[in-house]
Amino acid sequence: MKLKKSILLPFYWRNSCLYILDQKKLPFEKKYIRCTSYRDVIRCIIDMNIRGAPAIGIAAGYAFVLAIKEAKGSFNFYKFLKEKAEEIISSRPTAYNIFYCVNRIKEKILSLGNKKNNKEFLFKEALKEVKIIEEENRNALLKIVNYGVALIKNNSSVLTHCNTGPLACGDVGTALGIIIEAYHRGKIKNVYVDETRPYLQGARLTTLELEVAKVPYVLITDNMAAFVIKEKKVSCVIIGADRIARNGDTANKIGSYNLAVLCKYHKIPFYIAAPSSSIDNSIPSGRYIKIEMRPADEVKYINNQPITTKNAKVIHPAFDITDAKLITAIITEKGVFRYPYNFAKI
Amino acid sequence: MKLKKSILLPFYWRNSCLYILDQKKLPFEKKYIRCTSYRDVIRCIIDMNIRGAPAIGIAAGYAFVLAIKEAKGSFNFYKFLKEKAEEIISSRPTAYNIFYCVNRIKEKILSLGNKKNNKEFLFKEALKEVKIIEEENRNALLKIVNYGVALIKNNSSVLTHCNTGPLACGDVGTALGIIIEAYHRGKIKNVYVDETRPYLQGARLTTLELEVAKVPYVLITDNMAAFVIKEKKVSCVIIGADRIARNGDTANKIGSYNLAVLCKYHKIPFYIAAPSSSIDNSIPSGRYIKIEMRPADEVKYINNQPITTKNAKVIHPAFDITDAKLITAIITEKGVFRYPYNFAKI
Repeated sequence: MKLKKSILLPFYWRNSCLYILDQKKLPFEKKYIRCTSYRDVIRCIIDMNIRGAPAIGIAAGYAFVLAIKEAKGSFNFYKFLKEKAEEIISSRPTAYNIFYCVNRIKEKILSLGNKKNNKEFLFKEALKEVKIIEEENRNALLKIVNYGVALIKNNSSVLTHCNTGPLACGDVGTALGIIIEAYHRGKIKNVYVDETRPYLQGARLTTLELEVAKVPYVLITDNMAAFVIKEKKVSCVIIGADRIARNGDTANKIGSYNLAVLCKYHKIPFYIAAPSSSIDNSIPSGRYIKIEMRPADEVKYINNQPITTKNAKVIHPAFDITDAKLITAIITEKGVFRYPYNFAKI
Repeated sequence: MKLKKSILLPFYWRNSCLYILDQKKLPFEKKYIRCTSYRDVIRCIIDMNIRGAPAIGIAAGYAFVLAIKEAKGSFNFYKFLKEKAEEIISSRPTAYNIFYCVNRIKEKILSLGNKKNNKEFLFKEALKEVKIIEEENRNALLKIVNYGVALIKNNSSVLTHCNTGPLACGDVGTALGIIIEAYHRGKIKNVYVDETRPYLQGARLTTLELEVAKVPYVLITDNMAAFVIKEKKVSCVIIGADRIARNGDTANKIGSYNLAVLCKYHKIPFYIAAPSSSIDNSIPSGRYIKIEMRPADEVKYINNQPITTKNAKVIHPAFDITDAKLITAIITEKGVFRYPYNFAKI
């Protein structure tokens, strides 16, 4: 595998602090935010300094580690773990990865039983667990990339949305990892990148990551996707996922459903690439996924400058749900799944 | 008809000058650019200080009037008219209205035959003709609005794209005129406005015009359209047109084709509202419409600030083509046309 590791790590752990790359400042400035408290991490997740389901899942895991480190005095152990876990999970309710990582560390700590009053020990065990999750994440991403590249036909033109590279995943990436690897294996001739309003993750992050990976690309506004798919003969669309329901319905960055409909109409494949930790078997369909509504000002301002009238009323759903039947395949580290999806066993 | 005239005129003629409202500065600043020469008007059209097919058609007509006024010394009359007309028309090749208005004034002047050396007389005749076109435009728009309102069902939620109000049309507007009037007649409960990247005509202009007209609305990013159509149960999409081919294929602001596909998938009507001067019977289909490719920096910068990497490669098609079969009806002042379109007789 020729994958080059991006020079841009979304976060790193050093001296019991989590350093989070401020992705809101990219591509113009590279600055890491030092998080000494779990609440610093929560703030970074809420404010979208870090984003991307796999990356925020692991960052949330580190937040939980920090919360354990910060625990002071005597306390109700079970209540403490439950409360902190809930507080961290609520930072991005749509992302199942946060739920997955935080709960896994919680279960690990609970399994230690009688050591519960040795906080230093618990902290180290929690840290060990999040590092295991990180390693599993890396291995999962490498598998996803391999499964995904196999689906890409030679001489393809692909379109992607939002950002699903190393910055989003803490490692090689999901959808963008597939695109980068398929390009370097000579299977892709054109890459189109949606700018991804309102946060412009495509314009700010995916472009940067493709430049780092030496993959030529063309940036478009989101509303050019239909034109490009038709006129430039796009072969397929590949994107990531924030949460996948048991039936395959997928929550992802706003605009994903739009692309799925375009693929259906133009009869080209629409692929989702995500680690299986994004699959939430507890919900039967997308109707049960809560869509996070974010502040209107994130639409009304770009680079702190207004783009509309002062009184403009705005809605800002951060995600949308794509019906399972519009998804050609969901690429996970456990294999490639197709409609009708049945994840009950994984 | 309860239509309120917008306080924002896209242009006005005074003392042999055309004053063009700088729409690039809206909604933050209201400033008119004084055009004393036809080339000033061309520059405003190219730089998009004025936009909207009907408005730039008439502005181009005034440009032609100014060109005649500016003619100096002895000159080849036919060659002069032909050259100036071509120069003006090339400012926005996709907009048929420019071609229509300029050619009509040219034909008018040519019909005057032996008066061709009396420039003052020709100038006045040209001015008279453009004022007739303006009056016809107003009457056409009022008819379009009436035809359009009749198509809107009670209790509708509508979505629109770009800007098709008074600023775009020089009068009550096309698609937005219909929406405003239908709202005031109590037929519409929700209006959704696409921000319309890259120029943000929806966010900057349509919002402003709806506020002037006292119509509540919700602004969305373009990639939210599919979500809103599905989740908010949008009843129909109504937009304008820049050029309509004989078979009904329609060129309009980039993103229009995207919406047409969404309407098809969600089984809701997709309406085009435009004066018949936007119909180009000389071209059999959309394949013959030249799509204007505009500068990359219009995508890469918002309010003069970069939104992507310095080296990002961008394409910027200003328009796209919607297949006639995706259009439920084309609303003109000559009536409502449906697939298969046959405009040969109008």
